[in-house]
Amino acid sequence: MLDQRHARRGDATEDLGKAEATRQSILAAAARVFRADGYAGARLSDIAAKVGMKAGSLYYHFDSREALVEAVMDLGLKQTHETVAKRLRALPPDVGHVRRLEVAIEAHLELVLAHEDISSATIKLIWQVPAQIRERQLADQRAYGALWRKLLTDARKAGAIRGDVDLSVVRMAIMGALNWAADWYKPGRMTPRQIARDIAAMVLGGLAGEPKNKRK
Amino acid sequence: MLDQRHARRGDATEDLGKAEATRQSILAAAARVFRADGYAGARLSDIAAKVGMKAGSLYYHFDSREALVEAVMDLGLKQTHETVAKRLRALPPDVGHVRRLEVAIEAHLELVLAHEDISSATIKLIWQVPAQIRERQLADQRAYGALWRKLLTDARKAGAIRGDVDLSVVRMAIMGALNWAADWYKPGRMTPRQIARDIAAMVLGGLAGEPKNKRK
Repeated sequence: MLDQRHARRGDATEDLGKAEATRQSILAAAARVFRADGYAGARLSDIAAKVGMKAGSLYYHFDSREALVEAVMDLGLKQTHETVAKRLRALPPDVGHVRRLEVAIEAHLELVLAHEDISSATIKLIWQVPAQIRERQLADQRAYGALWRKLLTDARKAGAIRGDVDLSVVRMAIMGALNWAADWYKPGRMTPRQIARDIAAMVLGGLAGEPKNKRK
Repeated sequence: MLDQRHARRGDATEDLGKAEATRQSILAAAARVFRADGYAGARLSDIAAKVGMKAGSLYYHFDSREALVEAVMDLGLKQTHETVAKRLRALPPDVGHVRRLEVAIEAHLELVLAHEDISSATIKLIWQVPAQIRERQLADQRAYGALWRKLLTDARKAGAIRGDVDLSVVRMAIMGALNWAADWYKPGRMTPRQIARDIAAMVLGGLAGEPKNKRK
């Protein structure tokens, strides 16, 4: 979409670029406010103030509170889905299944923590938004879930992961372990990458397992 | 508290028992409604209707919406904390650290799934309730977190778990994996105990690890 727009240069394209930049700033501000105050509690005037607008001007970019909240949630899920898929595609074809899982875990967590407000707002809002929005979001979540389901079933077929656990349970437990981080993470002591590696080490190697360098 | 009440029998005690039973029904109904409709969206008249009361009669048991929501959240956290602590105390003293972690994981998840409405409401409400309630709940969560911190540091000191991961990260990842289940779990295909065992197997043995019966 963005690529198409940039393919032909000109004033119209620049305007589109500007509108898109404004849209992104509004979404970032909206994520912060929705995260802190919830769906019903968030004040559109607070969101507008954060980007130096009047509340009425928000409607130039988003038709309604519903449209704004849905755009925030779309962004959270789509960015995560696309980035994880892209990182997996970038791996050499001979990379093992366990390493592929490790890359997916790390990519997902880095996204969650890089877009902490958006991820955290998305996770919290799912139960506060109108049913119609929730249904659409859950459908998108299922599409992303299918990527993980394939990763896990491929790994099992190849004998790379244990056969005595239910893969749906495992998949949801991994999502829980990663998504929860949007709430407890505070920048400082550890980087997102270090946290991602520790969670991947636990999920793949187990707490009672030997450290990786000892295993190899 | 309940034990003291039941120690002396009589009409007053029976009344107290009845009031307590009503209180428990109200809390269960409140958890269902708060879970579905959120803190601001929940209608006290819906909660009252579920227990065959008028909304005004709720105030005989709970002073305010705040008091009711806080009682639901207290119940969720306290039941979990007490049950996990009790199961650990019931273990023979020579039980290994990894088995202790396994017992704690299983007890926590069973509680989350047995009181699904209460757990799920508690998790969702934490970000919707007034700041004062949230602060008190977070303090209780920290007290429960201390139990897990000790389990993990004891295990590490004894060399029972790997030394190359941050234990706070691991603790929060385990909580995320377990608490998330309040939302995705649907009774039917698997029992809470089976799910708990699979998550414990992943957390302790790792997905890339050998199944338990092969290891032993």
